[in-house]
Amino acid sequence: MLKVVLLGGGNIAYHLFTAFGKLSSVNLIQCYNRNIHSIEEFGKFTQITDDINSLEKADIYIIAVTDDAIGQVSDMLPFSDNFVVHTSGNVSMYSMNAKNRRGVLYPLQTFSKEKLVDFGTLPICIEAEDEKDFNFLKAFSSELSTHVYEINSEQRKVIHLAAVFVNNFVNHLYYIGHELCEKNNVPFNILHPLIEETTHKIMDLAPKEAQTGPAKRNDQSTINAHLEQLPNKNYKEIYKLLTASIQNTYGRKKL
Amino acid sequence: MLKVVLLGGGNIAYHLFTAFGKLSSVNLIQCYNRNIHSIEEFGKFTQITDDINSLEKADIYIIAVTDDAIGQVSDMLPFSDNFVVHTSGNVSMYSMNAKNRRGVLYPLQTFSKEKLVDFGTLPICIEAEDEKDFNFLKAFSSELSTHVYEINSEQRKVIHLAAVFVNNFVNHLYYIGHELCEKNNVPFNILHPLIEETTHKIMDLAPKEAQTGPAKRNDQSTINAHLEQLPNKNYKEIYKLLTASIQNTYGRKKL
Repeated sequence: MLKVVLLGGGNIAYHLFTAFGKLSSVNLIQCYNRNIHSIEEFGKFTQITDDINSLEKADIYIIAVTDDAIGQVSDMLPFSDNFVVHTSGNVSMYSMNAKNRRGVLYPLQTFSKEKLVDFGTLPICIEAEDEKDFNFLKAFSSELSTHVYEINSEQRKVIHLAAVFVNNFVNHLYYIGHELCEKNNVPFNILHPLIEETTHKIMDLAPKEAQTGPAKRNDQSTINAHLEQLPNKNYKEIYKLLTASIQNTYGRKKL
Repeated sequence: MLKVVLLGGGNIAYHLFTAFGKLSSVNLIQCYNRNIHSIEEFGKFTQITDDINSLEKADIYIIAVTDDAIGQVSDMLPFSDNFVVHTSGNVSMYSMNAKNRRGVLYPLQTFSKEKLVDFGTLPICIEAEDEKDFNFLKAFSSELSTHVYEINSEQRKVIHLAAVFVNNFVNHLYYIGHELCEKNNVPFNILHPLIEETTHKIMDLAPKEAQTGPAKRNDQSTINAHLEQLPNKNYKEIYKLLTASIQNTYGRKKL
């Protein structure tokens, strides 16, 4: 059985803890957190500690803490030449202390404690300095998910950036749609099937092929009517900029 | 059985034709189109014509033509005091000729001829000048879908505008995410589960509650790193504007 030590008490640590509990091939021998109260519930199932100097010997140490703290926690590890990974999309593997053999295990998902995550098909991006460690990490991650990708630190930064567009920014457009509906006594759920269809479409079709709407058609009278209709400067600016960007993508038709 | 005449030969006409074919309560007695070739395949199942003066007597006439042509087709109808509806999200009921009793039956979805549409749960927005016509239209639309909404012309315009944000603009953000991935040899499908989760989240949670990311957290160092990383001015501008809009929505934290 693979011996694992988990460091951290946040969302990712919580979900990894739950996932490891289901795997017969993984033995989570210890959990560490600076504040032991946030991992108290782990204590029913494994050893917990808030003393970083009392970490047990393991095959892999997983640092699942906030981006800013990863370097610091890696500095504090009281050993060297062990295999240590972090779980962040946005932090280079090399930001960890070089006294240990370094790697990354980045599960690509938004985690919140309230919602159970099915790791089974979750994309996991892995990276390691050493080839032997990489092969170990690949086998280890494959216990968690069938979708394991070899992704270097540069590519991981790109994924994190692209995720801001397709997750955070998309959600903000949902918010604007929601606001427009609410202010005009239209139930937002009238748009749910369209939102689902928009998402399902790009599972089969490249987003470039799936584009529709007045900007793509260069339908200037609808665009003008929409700009007129929008209730504030901010929404008008977003409408204009995204419309111009779509028009540039497809080549503005001569009128 | 309800007698229906369908006018038009585009995507919506095609999908309505298919949907009516499955309903035992609806008798599609005739299809009209200016160009009869585009509705030739309807001719196997019902009467077709390109002569607007030979329209049969029906309970409802459905004008499913492009936005620009709706008024014109309604002018050309060779009768008065019949119930006539159009199917557009963006055109007022009152843009049709007042010689007939007017209404709207707007199915809220993106239609393409290649993809079959399940009308069963599709939102249908209806409106009519006359109460008796409205009740008829409600019963008629309920044959097509279990999700029928009473929506006036003003509200319908709002829905159409909101749909641009949650469908057309969202798809463009998918496109940008796709571009960023492709240019860095990252498979875009690594983001599919995150995209699906983003959509599913707002089926239960208001988009305002579902927001996450560096803009929401006011994580300026990540925002700066992302702006640095983006490959062109256009993407940087979109990033800045949507980040500022999220920060305004949640109140920029004092640093």
